[in-house]
Amino acid sequence: MSAYDELMAFQRETEALGQVMGRLGWDQETVMPPGAAEQRAEEMAALDGVLHRRRTDPRIGEWLEAARPESAEAERQLHKIRHRFERTRRVPEKLSAALARTTSLAHRIWAEARATDDYALFAPKLAEVLGLAREKAAALSEDGNLYNALLDDYEPGATEAELEAMFGALRPRLVALRERVMGSDREVPRLGWRFDEAGQLALSTELARAFGYDSAHGRIDKAVHPFSSGSGLDVRITTRTVPEDPFNCFFSTIHEVGHACYEQGIDAAYLLTPLGRGVSMGVHESQSRIYENQLGRSRAFTGWLFGRMRDTFGDFGIGDGETFYAVANRCAPGFIRTEADEVHYNLHVLLRFDLERDLIAGRLEVPDLPEAWNARFEADFGLKVDRPSNGVLQDVHWSEALFGYFPTYTLGNVYAGCLHAALRRDVPDLDAHLARGVTAPATAWLREKVQRYGGLYEPRDVITRATGEAPGEGPLLDYLDAKFGEIYGV
Amino acid sequence: MSAYDELMAFQRETEALGQVMGRLGWDQETVMPPGAAEQRAEEMAALDGVLHRRRTDPRIGEWLEAARPESAEAERQLHKIRHRFERTRRVPEKLSAALARTTSLAHRIWAEARATDDYALFAPKLAEVLGLAREKAAALSEDGNLYNALLDDYEPGATEAELEAMFGALRPRLVALRERVMGSDREVPRLGWRFDEAGQLALSTELARAFGYDSAHGRIDKAVHPFSSGSGLDVRITTRTVPEDPFNCFFSTIHEVGHACYEQGIDAAYLLTPLGRGVSMGVHESQSRIYENQLGRSRAFTGWLFGRMRDTFGDFGIGDGETFYAVANRCAPGFIRTEADEVHYNLHVLLRFDLERDLIAGRLEVPDLPEAWNARFEADFGLKVDRPSNGVLQDVHWSEALFGYFPTYTLGNVYAGCLHAALRRDVPDLDAHLARGVTAPATAWLREKVQRYGGLYEPRDVITRATGEAPGEGPLLDYLDAKFGEIYGV
Repeated sequence: MSAYDELMAFQRETEALGQVMGRLGWDQETVMPPGAAEQRAEEMAALDGVLHRRRTDPRIGEWLEAARPESAEAERQLHKIRHRFERTRRVPEKLSAALARTTSLAHRIWAEARATDDYALFAPKLAEVLGLAREKAAALSEDGNLYNALLDDYEPGATEAELEAMFGALRPRLVALRERVMGSDREVPRLGWRFDEAGQLALSTELARAFGYDSAHGRIDKAVHPFSSGSGLDVRITTRTVPEDPFNCFFSTIHEVGHACYEQGIDAAYLLTPLGRGVSMGVHESQSRIYENQLGRSRAFTGWLFGRMRDTFGDFGIGDGETFYAVANRCAPGFIRTEADEVHYNLHVLLRFDLERDLIAGRLEVPDLPEAWNARFEADFGLKVDRPSNGVLQDVHWSEALFGYFPTYTLGNVYAGCLHAALRRDVPDLDAHLARGVTAPATAWLREKVQRYGGLYEPRDVITRATGEAPGEGPLLDYLDAKFGEIYGV
Repeated sequence: MSAYDELMAFQRETEALGQVMGRLGWDQETVMPPGAAEQRAEEMAALDGVLHRRRTDPRIGEWLEAARPESAEAERQLHKIRHRFERTRRVPEKLSAALARTTSLAHRIWAEARATDDYALFAPKLAEVLGLAREKAAALSEDGNLYNALLDDYEPGATEAELEAMFGALRPRLVALRERVMGSDREVPRLGWRFDEAGQLALSTELARAFGYDSAHGRIDKAVHPFSSGSGLDVRITTRTVPEDPFNCFFSTIHEVGHACYEQGIDAAYLLTPLGRGVSMGVHESQSRIYENQLGRSRAFTGWLFGRMRDTFGDFGIGDGETFYAVANRCAPGFIRTEADEVHYNLHVLLRFDLERDLIAGRLEVPDLPEAWNARFEADFGLKVDRPSNGVLQDVHWSEALFGYFPTYTLGNVYAGCLHAALRRDVPDLDAHLARGVTAPATAWLREKVQRYGGLYEPRDVITRATGEAPGEGPLLDYLDAKFGEIYGV
């Protein structure tokens, strides 16, 4: 066997073990008996140890040195392996273990602090996590910018400067749109009805199928928080139901189907290789968001959904498709990011992006974080945060040291905007299909242009190749202005 | 850390990874998407490689050498680790890999051969598996007896000679009982009714609870073949339903609950250690069989079950508890071991025990196996085997090289007989509880006398300590004679 083949065989086993780790996570959130948590933690820690030892195995260095790739794809596989190997090695074992231990503890304390609305309980642990994250960033940094070093875990190649420029252009137009919408005198009602769980789950499964989710290589279960999990031939999603809010179920299913279809759509030749997973969190989120919003919440598709909901639940008090479309896109400021509409969502993310950069750069201290959060929130949303669980304690990310993760949500929306503009150009009659509940012309386009490549190209390049131009915030803003300007008559 | 502590920490991780492997097996049989099999095989192979490397890690030898156990329990932990380590190391890597590869292929070919009733398709692969099993036995054997070397994987300490003596005493009395029962003119009807699945599953769950299954540390799912899986804090079982045969569902649930309660009942101090699992297949089977048969099919308990079935399904054509008791214990010769009644079951096992010893000893060749099987079957059961799937191809074991496994089924029944006699002596009013669906006096006795010890004592010693005398076939035979003599009036 050549060094390349040996390396890839070793890597393939590591990828397979990584999938096992993902499956344990799935199991934990869906079917695990309540009393098994303690044992599960040991199982996952043991497997994590195995993965860590494999990822730092010195033979990888030798194989990388000796490997002679014979194709551009092989070159790219090596690049991905080398990049990961070097980053893993640069973090001292002791720091890595401290991060694992501290985030595990911090996660539990965060959950307790959120439940009891007690930021002071969480603050000391967050300060510890932040300190370790900064240490890690310093160990990884190539250009002296700590935030860039962290970003790379989620969005390889992205930089703070580039995101700052993009988000800086995004923010004023978003704020302006939000103000117009909030100033509108058009009243969009909420759904005022209870929708039975069986009906929601049946329609949710129908939606997953309509968006191309392949159930032969996945399954749908209920979980407290919807998620997608796994790559290759086993990509599972979860959903949830809320009696008075079936959109929560339907659009989170479509969102997770977007993630899952990305994984399911990757070229089978990349199975269990570094190219066999979505290339970045941003590109991943572009798929989930375009499925959920640009397609799922479009006028055409909601027209079809309105009919299916009437078939399933009977008359639920909305008389026509136009009203239903507005209801499905209703805008209102709220405290919680994950419940935000398309207009407000990115403002939630930008707030976190700015605050976490300040934390990492040392411009903001942990004790001062709630005040900074609340001030910014009131300025952006016109609402006073009433308690920490509606503010700084709402998201899990920082307790897990995921600094650099948040911006990928907005980057995903920006990418979705670019892809959507190109898709509409390439498939001019898309609405005629969506109006019949048929998404195939869109999902096939996304598979062809984005999904099948997996990790073959750099994230930005995936979007550039798919759309013919470098990604920017313009298309997303144009889309939002047009859509919400029309719905709210502003 | 002392050498002992280091070894135990290493072992704990290995045990945790072994649990992960078990969970993958559970997932595969219950919830895995149909198209995921190929990837799952790679995931399991990768994890198996990790486990094999850990189990043969040379550091184990060093730790064993240096460890100074400070208690009898620590001594026993070391004994278990040493025994496993030495056996694993004695099988050459190449042979171990050949066995894994060949049995994996043989399993698939066996399934195809069984489905098409084509023994000739399976025979060459079986011959290969047998050859490798003999090689493995030769590598492991300490006394020149190949079969003993294989037995040790399933029933540590058991010997062919001892089992031969025990089963030799069992067989004539079983045959005599069978003949009396078959000669009886008492007619025991079958259930002639269809029982809806929801009712079966609900009552099955109730039975699991009644027998002490702890759902906080386990769950019940449907699978093609019922099984129990996992140790410690996560012990899952499966069941199945057949519309016209609810006993299939109920008694296989109770059987698996017996296995699961053994694992759940082990002293929590042994979690994720070599003592934290049932000590042998024979003792495991003693728990499943005493739950299923001596308790579950007792007159007292079936009286309660009869009432619960009438509550659940209404009148199903059986008028009284006495008839119901006979129906639940109906005897009839049949081709399939797993469907056999208590009188016939061990005759199925003894047939396999004798044939597989002949195969391992080289007294019987693979091409001659069906003829030997069919002749023995006709002699024992008075039935001509009509096709290989009703004969030599019915069981999976030999395709997986599990020679030495079969006798543990009958050993389990023998142990169950011993335990049952002691239990009746210690809890004289047991039937009064069982008649109300209360099994706690029996299950608590079994937990106290057997289950909590896990791997602390040798299998035979577990039974001796629980009953006060060395295990023998007498109590099982007395129980069978009395029970079926009465039901059939013979």
